[in-house]
Amino acid sequence: METILKENERIDDLQLKGLKIIQNPDGFCFGIDAVLLSNFSQITKGGVVVDLGTGTGIIPLLVAGKSSARKIYGVEVQETVADMAQRSVLLNALSGRIEILNINLKDVHQHVEKGAADVVISNPPYMPAGGALVNPGSYKAISRHEVLCTLEDVVSSASTLLKEKGAFYMVHRPSRLVDIICLCRKYKLEPKQVRFVHPREGKEPNILLIKCVKSGNPELRIMPPLYVYGEGEAYTSEIYDIYAQVNIDVFDKRGND
Amino acid sequence: METILKENERIDDLQLKGLKIIQNPDGFCFGIDAVLLSNFSQITKGGVVVDLGTGTGIIPLLVAGKSSARKIYGVEVQETVADMAQRSVLLNALSGRIEILNINLKDVHQHVEKGAADVVISNPPYMPAGGALVNPGSYKAISRHEVLCTLEDVVSSASTLLKEKGAFYMVHRPSRLVDIICLCRKYKLEPKQVRFVHPREGKEPNILLIKCVKSGNPELRIMPPLYVYGEGEAYTSEIYDIYAQVNIDVFDKRGND
Repeated sequence: METILKENERIDDLQLKGLKIIQNPDGFCFGIDAVLLSNFSQITKGGVVVDLGTGTGIIPLLVAGKSSARKIYGVEVQETVADMAQRSVLLNALSGRIEILNINLKDVHQHVEKGAADVVISNPPYMPAGGALVNPGSYKAISRHEVLCTLEDVVSSASTLLKEKGAFYMVHRPSRLVDIICLCRKYKLEPKQVRFVHPREGKEPNILLIKCVKSGNPELRIMPPLYVYGEGEAYTSEIYDIYAQVNIDVFDKRGND
Repeated sequence: METILKENERIDDLQLKGLKIIQNPDGFCFGIDAVLLSNFSQITKGGVVVDLGTGTGIIPLLVAGKSSARKIYGVEVQETVADMAQRSVLLNALSGRIEILNINLKDVHQHVEKGAADVVISNPPYMPAGGALVNPGSYKAISRHEVLCTLEDVVSSASTLLKEKGAFYMVHRPSRLVDIICLCRKYKLEPKQVRFVHPREGKEPNILLIKCVKSGNPELRIMPPLYVYGEGEAYTSEIYDIYAQVNIDVFDKRGND
């Protein structure tokens, strides 16, 4: 089993139907955002799913574990990271359902037919490009800043991939909600549901989950807030329920910066 | 004092610096929405304020009571209602600060100079026009449905009235947030702050408060939720604090339908 790992990598047990994921604790670990997003996303039975910016493949793995999706594409531009995702697919014997595409998500239509997706999911870079980056070529910079793709690229690609009435699920920062809403409507992805995630009661949210429907009717539902922490450092029961199927120890706190 | 009242009208004490308001309990009472909006709005010292769709003038009265605004315009298209607002201004000897304009808010620029306002406030009709209205000419239909003005008219008028960096405060329904955000950005009113008002914990919000800044930088803050009810039918302490300056008995429950 160890031959599938490269330097500094380890295998974490997702505790969901025996699924495992290859991660690098020094840089390539998924965060709470990906878990919340997977939980928030409703997957069409037997459907086609595309995850834009899949990183180490956590969302395709969780979607494969929790749903009957027929085909799940994970799109990742960074070769090192896409390679880890690909090895996790092999490790879990999921090559029949998950395909990792090592391409820029702007080019996804050359690999996945337009209008073929029932569901598109994305945990994209949160920060606009510009501003000084210490190392704009680093994994962290590319996964957190809009260096290689913008929010508009993500929304535009999602819209092109989706069939009519298909669903787009994204996790992002509340501070970008205006950009998100305006871009989604521009590309005919009508926002239908938003849930804000707050660190705890009385605090402003630092994560948002949004569901859009391609060519959906205008009417937004704001869900009750989701609180991460209750008393002290203890998670709320709702977070425990969401985490229940996934190994809590492998989370970093990226979503709670 | 009674000569200032017409049939079915009464005078309610706002318990704020001795202010009183003329209302008609059968149709023309202000709701929780107006109180929350007044509380949410930050008024520029010595500034010019315009309230678009002022109804019986509750917002100009509360703003006059809580701030040092130099001039407050209340714009109301319905003659009967504008007349009540005008008599409340007289009753409170506020003619020097509050001016009621009995015009359609689309025409407000003919009466208030463009770019003259520091703050624009609005509690507009929430429902799109269209759909069957029993009586589209009634006060309630006009104040609740976009019969005589649309959301776009409100946003457009607000933008024209405001000076650069002036603030626009509005109360509305969360289900319309996408329309609100897209229209505000279209008219250069950048959404800066949103607060959702939930009937109680665990419930979806049914009211939203939004602050936009003309030509503001893009960065939205979502505030912690405001809950109206705590245990049973008791208001939360935050609602009590907001209501503390205003006679709680005169509220109808329009905002909590």
